[in-house]
This record gives sequence, structure tokens and C-alpha cells, in this order.
Amino acid sequence: MLSKNTVKFIKSLHQKKFRKQESAFFVEGAKNVTELLLSNYTVSHLLCTEKYLEENASLLTGFSGIKVDVKPKELASLGTFSSNDQALAVAKIKENKPLTLGNDHLILALDDVRDPGNLGTIIRIADWYGIEKILLSKNTADVYNPKVLNASMGSFTRLSFEYVDLLEKLTASNLPIYGAFLEGKNVHHLEKMSTGILLMGNESNGISGQLEKIVTQKLTIPAFGEAESLNVAIATAVLCDNLKRNMP
Amino acid sequence: MLSKNTVKFIKSLHQKKFRKQESAFFVEGAKNVTELLLSNYTVSHLLCTEKYLEENASLLTGFSGIKVDVKPKELASLGTFSSNDQALAVAKIKENKPLTLGNDHLILALDDVRDPGNLGTIIRIADWYGIEKILLSKNTADVYNPKVLNASMGSFTRLSFEYVDLLEKLTASNLPIYGAFLEGKNVHHLEKMSTGILLMGNESNGISGQLEKIVTQKLTIPAFGEAESLNVAIATAVLCDNLKRNMP
Repeated sequence: MLSKNTVKFIKSLHQKKFRKQESAFFVEGAKNVTELLLSNYTVSHLLCTEKYLEENASLLTGFSGIKVDVKPKELASLGTFSSNDQALAVAKIKENKPLTLGNDHLILALDDVRDPGNLGTIIRIADWYGIEKILLSKNTADVYNPKVLNASMGSFTRLSFEYVDLLEKLTASNLPIYGAFLEGKNVHHLEKMSTGILLMGNESNGISGQLEKIVTQKLTIPAFGEAESLNVAIATAVLCDNLKRNMP
Repeated sequence: MLSKNTVKFIKSLHQKKFRKQESAFFVEGAKNVTELLLSNYTVSHLLCTEKYLEENASLLTGFSGIKVDVKPKELASLGTFSSNDQALAVAKIKENKPLTLGNDHLILALDDVRDPGNLGTIIRIADWYGIEKILLSKNTADVYNPKVLNASMGSFTRLSFEYVDLLEKLTASNLPIYGAFLEGKNVHHLEKMSTGILLMGNESNGISGQLEKIVTQKLTIPAFGEAESLNVAIATAVLCDNLKRNMP
């Protein structure tokens, strides 16, 4: 049975302050919960319906967390989904460890991407294009925000993240840094390349002046019409597609 | 001064039923309103702050609609934005006229794209890639939904739309039809092409079985990682980018 304390605990995790304090976050919906159970995250609580349990029994072999049977109505009241007839799970936040760069073809760096929906969508795109590491400026949205996790559709479980001073980290990497600008090289005319970091900027202001100085190759998505810009997640997808087609 | 009737009228336009009945829609925010005033839509009401008026006086030459001075607080209470310190405008919905196909390089067709945010983002992408016409199945979201218009960032003013039976329209067009599938031709290996219709499907179910039969070339965005799929707006952008690079 769902206790008042569990309800209070999960509801507190909507807020970054309490996620940090508890070092915990939640995901909701069958797909996200299944991906979480398949990942190397430590799951502390699994709240699910009988239906979910029957269909996913194999995922629970060796599961040592707290398991609570719940009704769909209870699930919806805990999370952000208007309906959730399957599951919700709580897991431990991973430590913000320094990521080693160097053996990756493509790494993503986000300079102040503020919108949780954009960040989640970018994580899903990164997972599609085989990117395994994302560096995030300290003002970028919180990866463990429920809106980010929902938009990522489970992809966050396969990536590593580091919140870091991008200027220091990127400079020390000695890797080529590709940045999206309105006056860069047309990405339809790129040469073959082996590795690099794709740097994407803030929704309103783009890449900051400080970081612009360390970009080694400015890139531009060719426009054929009149729109002034593309949404940052859309631009990330198109740039990843153009970079990956030129990588080994 | 803002009258009670105007308030009631604009608030009613949040709902499709009343937009249809009044044959009117509203846009909000400086960028959207400015794009609307620059377009060939007939603007019936302009509600704006003194600041907006001073900065955009030239746009109002010849404007024959109703002009109301308002405070930012009043604007925010009328629209969907939590803050809007500039303007809101009401315009006449364009008639759903049959679009002539044939002289366009690339046309977009949407089979049941239900999410207003996705539709708005797709309209902005289409405008970036120089697409001028979008065919929409009857169950696709309403172009004049405020969420669609906001996500389109003014791009809707430069495109033409037709809600239509896609099976009939596409069959009659005799144009190549490109559809996004998980098992199609890798879009990184396309040959030069001159023209065609890009068909995108529903968020959950993709392209319907009936329409799949008339697709002349199935296309696939190559995956390098583990994500199962891409959001429909993201996929539209990557496909447009790959098709346009191969068109004259």
C-alpha cells in the first residue's frame, strides 16, 4: 500500500532542491520505468500496477528496492502525466563525475539550454546519433527534472552527463569544437572528420561570447526559406546528422 | 480601452469551435504580431502597448482594423503567454482552398500529427527549408490553435495550408511521395532529385496503412545509437535537410 510518507517523498522530487537533498529523482510511464530498470541506475522504489508487474516480471529479478502495488489514479496524482496506468520509479542521482573525453567520435556540449523540453529532446537525439557524453554548463536545465526525463523517452539512461565550466573543460580537451552560428560553414559542404565536440547555445542568446572564442569551426544549417532561426533541439538534430555522415 | 466584449471575443478564440464560428484567430507576442501585420492576413484587432506602437508605427500605415491600447497585464490575461508586454492581434482565418501542386520542389503532407507543439515546430522548419505548402489530414491539429501559432514563430504567415483527404490528393498529384519509415532507404545515400512530397505520420502510429501503399520511396534516418525513434518534428527537420541538399 502507498504510504503518506512515500507520497510526500515522491512529490518533493518535483523540485530540484529536494532532488539534490535526497540525491533522488523519479521517472514515470511504462517505457521510462522499463528503461530505468534495464539501466545501471540504482532504483530505490518501484510503484506499479498489477498489469505492469505481469508484463515485466523478468525485469524484477534481483530487484532489491521497495515495491508498491498502486492504482493508475494514484500514479497520475504523483507524477506529471495526466494519465499513467503503468508505473513510476525512484532512483538515485549519479554523482557529477568528470567525464574523460577522447575516445568518442562526437560529444555534445550545451551552453545554457534552459528549457527542460529542449534538453530532454536533445538527449533523445544524442542517443539516436550514438553520442554517449553530454557536457552541460551550470545554468543548463537539470537532467533529472521530470520534464527532461519524459522528453528523453528513456534515452537519458544510456548517456553520461557532467555539469562543468565549459570554457575550462573544452579548452583542456584539445578537440575540435563545432559551434552553431548563423554565419558559419555550410554543413552540406563538410569534409570527412574524425572527432569533435558539438557546442549548442542558449535558446535566446546562442553561444556565449567567451565560448565563441574557442570554437574551431563555426557551422551553419543552410536556409532555403524565410524563418529566422530553428529551435535549438531541431538544430542539434540537423547538425548531428550532418556531422555523423562525415565521421567514420 | 479594452471592452468586455472584446475580452470575451478573444477568450472564445482559444477554442476551435469558436474560431470556426467567428472565422477568426489570435496571435500573441511582438514577433508573431509583427509577422502577422507584414503578411497578407486581414487583421481585425490590434491590442498593443504604447511601447509596441512606438517601435512599430510604420507597420500600421493603412491599418484599418480596431486598435486598442492595453497594458501588459491585460495582454497576458487574454492569451496563453504567462507574460506578454507587447501585443496581441486578431485576424481572419483563410478559406481552406485546394492547393495547386506541381511547381514546388518540396511539399509537406502530415498524416494525423496531433500535438499542436509539433505542428507549430514543423511549420517553422518548413519555412526554414523553403517549403510553401503543407497538406494536412483532417485529424491533424488545427493550424490556428494558439499553441501551433506560438511554436511556429510567425512562420505560418508565409505558408499555405489545406486540410484534405490525403489519399485522394496525393494520388492525384502524380508526384514522388517520400515517407518516413524505420526500414527505408538511408537518407545519407539519396540521389539527386527534383521534386516530391514528404509525408510524415502520427506521433504514435506513424503513417497509416492506406497511405503507406502510395509512398513511392520509403526513407530512413540512419541511427548510430539506441534510441527507438525520433520525435516527428525532429525527423521532419532531418528529412527536409537531406531532401533539400539533393534538390536543385
